[in-house]
Amino acid sequence: MKKAVLTFSGDEREAFYRVIYARRDIRHFKAGATVNEQVLSRILSAAHSAPSVGLMQPWRFIRVQERSLRMRIAALVEKERQQTALALQDECEGEKRAEEFLKLKVEGIKECAELIAVVLAPDDGTVFGRRTMPNEMALCSVACAIQNLWLAARAENLGVGWVSMFDPDALAEMLHCSATAKPVALLCVGPADVYYEKPMLEQCGWRQGRAVEEILYSDYYGNRQEIVGVKSS
Amino acid sequence: MKKAVLTFSGDEREAFYRVIYARRDIRHFKAGATVNEQVLSRILSAAHSAPSVGLMQPWRFIRVQERSLRMRIAALVEKERQQTALALQDECEGEKRAEEFLKLKVEGIKECAELIAVVLAPDDGTVFGRRTMPNEMALCSVACAIQNLWLAARAENLGVGWVSMFDPDALAEMLHCSATAKPVALLCVGPADVYYEKPMLEQCGWRQGRAVEEILYSDYYGNRQEIVGVKSS
Repeated sequence: MKKAVLTFSGDEREAFYRVIYARRDIRHFKAGATVNEQVLSRILSAAHSAPSVGLMQPWRFIRVQERSLRMRIAALVEKERQQTALALQDECEGEKRAEEFLKLKVEGIKECAELIAVVLAPDDGTVFGRRTMPNEMALCSVACAIQNLWLAARAENLGVGWVSMFDPDALAEMLHCSATAKPVALLCVGPADVYYEKPMLEQCGWRQGRAVEEILYSDYYGNRQEIVGVKSS
Repeated sequence: MKKAVLTFSGDEREAFYRVIYARRDIRHFKAGATVNEQVLSRILSAAHSAPSVGLMQPWRFIRVQERSLRMRIAALVEKERQQTALALQDECEGEKRAEEFLKLKVEGIKECAELIAVVLAPDDGTVFGRRTMPNEMALCSVACAIQNLWLAARAENLGVGWVSMFDPDALAEMLHCSATAKPVALLCVGPADVYYEKPMLEQCGWRQGRAVEEILYSDYYGNRQEIVGVKSS
């Protein structure tokens, strides 16, 4: 399955795009479900085949297996959820927004089959490709690995939710991270109860996404010029 | 093509994984080649369907169409390549390493069919999912969009190279970015001369990647425990 194929056919391309467009941030998981170990290994291998700046591969994946550790992580996320609601109150129409926020399901940490913490490893000093943006490029590499895992999981008919509502220092301590290793994601992985047709935040009316035209410029930032064929998705 | 499909078959999954493992960071492009506008629009739409924290979609894609702008960007990258060589000289066995570095082909900005700059948009104040890590989570969203584009391009039989050798402030000025918009990537896109079997940096003997086992931990950072079925890729 891993041999490089030089040319992709229309059918293969179509299958690929179906995965791209079916992927969602999932918060509704089937309680009590499991993930087959071979499947888990395949999605982790897909993550590890991501690009990284200077081949530094700065991603580390921690499979949370102890139930008590998972519960402590869930409590940490719940604490940040409350903090987020308080922060939203300070905004325009804040009280209403905070109330709406608290009604949203924002994570499935307790119910998902597998919980995987993703950590940015301590800097190994790689210079290639990151002399001017060292932290940014290492972090981007980790995000590419997560996106690979996310898409692979969808192709395996599994949902993934990226939870970023946590105090990174507190999570680092829980996971016994070395001083400069930094948690960036809690990935909830497992069979989903529902794969939303649109991003869940759109379905709930929390926020609407932009048309693709709005993010495309020609030559200069802010210079919108129609790129032939680009249609809103 | 964009309708969500609930279940993926083994064949579709295999096609998806072939794309994942065939994707490379490409620096050798077919000179004088072009990218079909419909294909370009498909890979940009794939990028725009990436996940983003709080649905902020902070990515902006600038298609560089003026030849003179492309040449100025190429000169900026060349300047940083020389700076990188100087930085490598300061390391252990530095002189040899710097010499080897200068022999590597690290980008294809002048030859690639399309050059696309990717910019992190000014912060829109989104609180959802990024109260504790605002910059990191916005940047990760941009990286996920780039990874989607990268994979989609490979499925379209095109190569992509992510060039990060540039002074971001100087590039921001060239692209007329507003004060807080930040360039994070120059993407070289187009038909490739060769799709490397392994990462080009491995093929050239610059650096070897890690086995997947080395990046997997159980419960705690650094706690290596075999995860059944995980084999080195």
